[in-house]
Amino acid sequence: MSFPALLAADAALVQARLDAALRARAEVPVVQAMRYAVQGGKRLRAFLVLESARLHGIAPEAAVSAAAAVEALHAYSLIHDDLPCMDDDDLRRGLPTVHVKWDEATAVLAGDALQTLAFELLCDPALGGAERRLALVGGLARASGAEGMVLGQALDIAAETAPVPLTLPEITRLQAGKTGALICFSAEAGALLAGTDPAPLRAYATALGLAFQIADDILDVEGDAASVGKRVGKDAEAGKATFVSLLGLEGAKIRAAALVAEAEAALAPYGTAASALIDAARFVISRQS
Amino acid sequence: MSFPALLAADAALVQARLDAALRARAEVPVVQAMRYAVQGGKRLRAFLVLESARLHGIAPEAAVSAAAAVEALHAYSLIHDDLPCMDDDDLRRGLPTVHVKWDEATAVLAGDALQTLAFELLCDPALGGAERRLALVGGLARASGAEGMVLGQALDIAAETAPVPLTLPEITRLQAGKTGALICFSAEAGALLAGTDPAPLRAYATALGLAFQIADDILDVEGDAASVGKRVGKDAEAGKATFVSLLGLEGAKIRAAALVAEAEAALAPYGTAASALIDAARFVISRQS
Repeated sequence: MSFPALLAADAALVQARLDAALRARAEVPVVQAMRYAVQGGKRLRAFLVLESARLHGIAPEAAVSAAAAVEALHAYSLIHDDLPCMDDDDLRRGLPTVHVKWDEATAVLAGDALQTLAFELLCDPALGGAERRLALVGGLARASGAEGMVLGQALDIAAETAPVPLTLPEITRLQAGKTGALICFSAEAGALLAGTDPAPLRAYATALGLAFQIADDILDVEGDAASVGKRVGKDAEAGKATFVSLLGLEGAKIRAAALVAEAEAALAPYGTAASALIDAARFVISRQS
Repeated sequence: MSFPALLAADAALVQARLDAALRARAEVPVVQAMRYAVQGGKRLRAFLVLESARLHGIAPEAAVSAAAAVEALHAYSLIHDDLPCMDDDDLRRGLPTVHVKWDEATAVLAGDALQTLAFELLCDPALGGAERRLALVGGLARASGAEGMVLGQALDIAAETAPVPLTLPEITRLQAGKTGALICFSAEAGALLAGTDPAPLRAYATALGLAFQIADDILDVEGDAASVGKRVGKDAEAGKATFVSLLGLEGAKIRAAALVAEAEAALAPYGTAASALIDAARFVISRQS
């Protein structure tokens, strides 16, 4: 199967799981907002869960609740990041953000409940024994809490009012939390489900996550809102340090390509079985949205 | 030990566990806000966890991470409920709320990270085998998500703009989610940790949770802000239906007392071993804050 076809197939699987989880109480606005927020997107994180699982001989059906958990967690973070008190964005995936379509209270609550749903999904017995599921709970909590994603977002907000732009080590640390930690967890999930050493996948995903963020910064300069699906040019406008402002456009592209090579090398122990994950690494720096 | 002494001892235990969990990254404002938000309070939920555990022969040390998890979850819900877009409260436990002392972005993030911390705390091996800990994760997720606490809060916000005040069954359903679900989970936790039937504790806590909320509505009418620690009289001011507006002050007191008797009766199978939990039920309708 080609990479785009596999990405689409995995996305369809995870969407069905999320839809099933959100079938109840469809008359409540907060649940409607949750359903809205888990539509669309590239589903890169779900892909990483499902393909790292497959790499360890685990069928998609036995990993899909973990993939859905990661996407629910990601969707919660996007809803809250878009709030007026945070990044104040009106557009996400080409559609009005949750607080624009509903209101701020519904957006806060829908995000809160999507985080809860993520942990609830990890209790699904289809994911295997209790030890394995608990390893996923612990891993997701560490990736998304005050030492992971929330820390990154807090550093990002602090940077907006900092007297001097961030340095390269500072912005690398920020992004390792803000986007890197959840991408890392997604790729490690297959090893956690199989009970094997997640080190090669962690090395792969650390490089992948950084390449992903550099590509995001490049898109913010080179992309247009219609294809990217969200407002662009806002980093330069805000005078924020980005990988592009620190490395230059060409330097950023060279660094991203080097990181993709690093990600590929980390998967060498798996041989050709890891080709889908290698395709994903190449995809993150070639994408237009 | 007297009930107030036991409540204070359990509160000290859970505070130490929360402090230990939040020792890292103390220089980050969002972590400072998290530490601030988990100070004080009655710690009724922690007490229910620790005493329901003791009732099943489980020492406090083997249950304290679950008690800390429940208090972290409760603290997150208070931070978010106090936000300007929600209940817009400036005062909580006699101190400025998190968004007043810091800002809205920090309040959203601190709440988010406290929810995550709750699930991370439930992974503590001191709580027992993976099956038991996973039962706690699932139970906490169901109590706090879009079918529990978040649903209750969403119904509460919807009620503020509803054309007619809520009826008694509607407000009972709202409160069963908003405050009842987490109180229920707290009391059931001891049975989940012991792997026994949580039905008697659930019946106890269902009555207790409702009595607690009726007492809250009575305090909103009879209390003063200094001893209650938060703004009072706001329900009547907002024209919101409460148990007092629906049952009258005397009717509300009679109903609360009947619920406490119901809570006591539910614990009959445990005999005198359940005296601490029975004291807690009497406490919730006699408290001044």
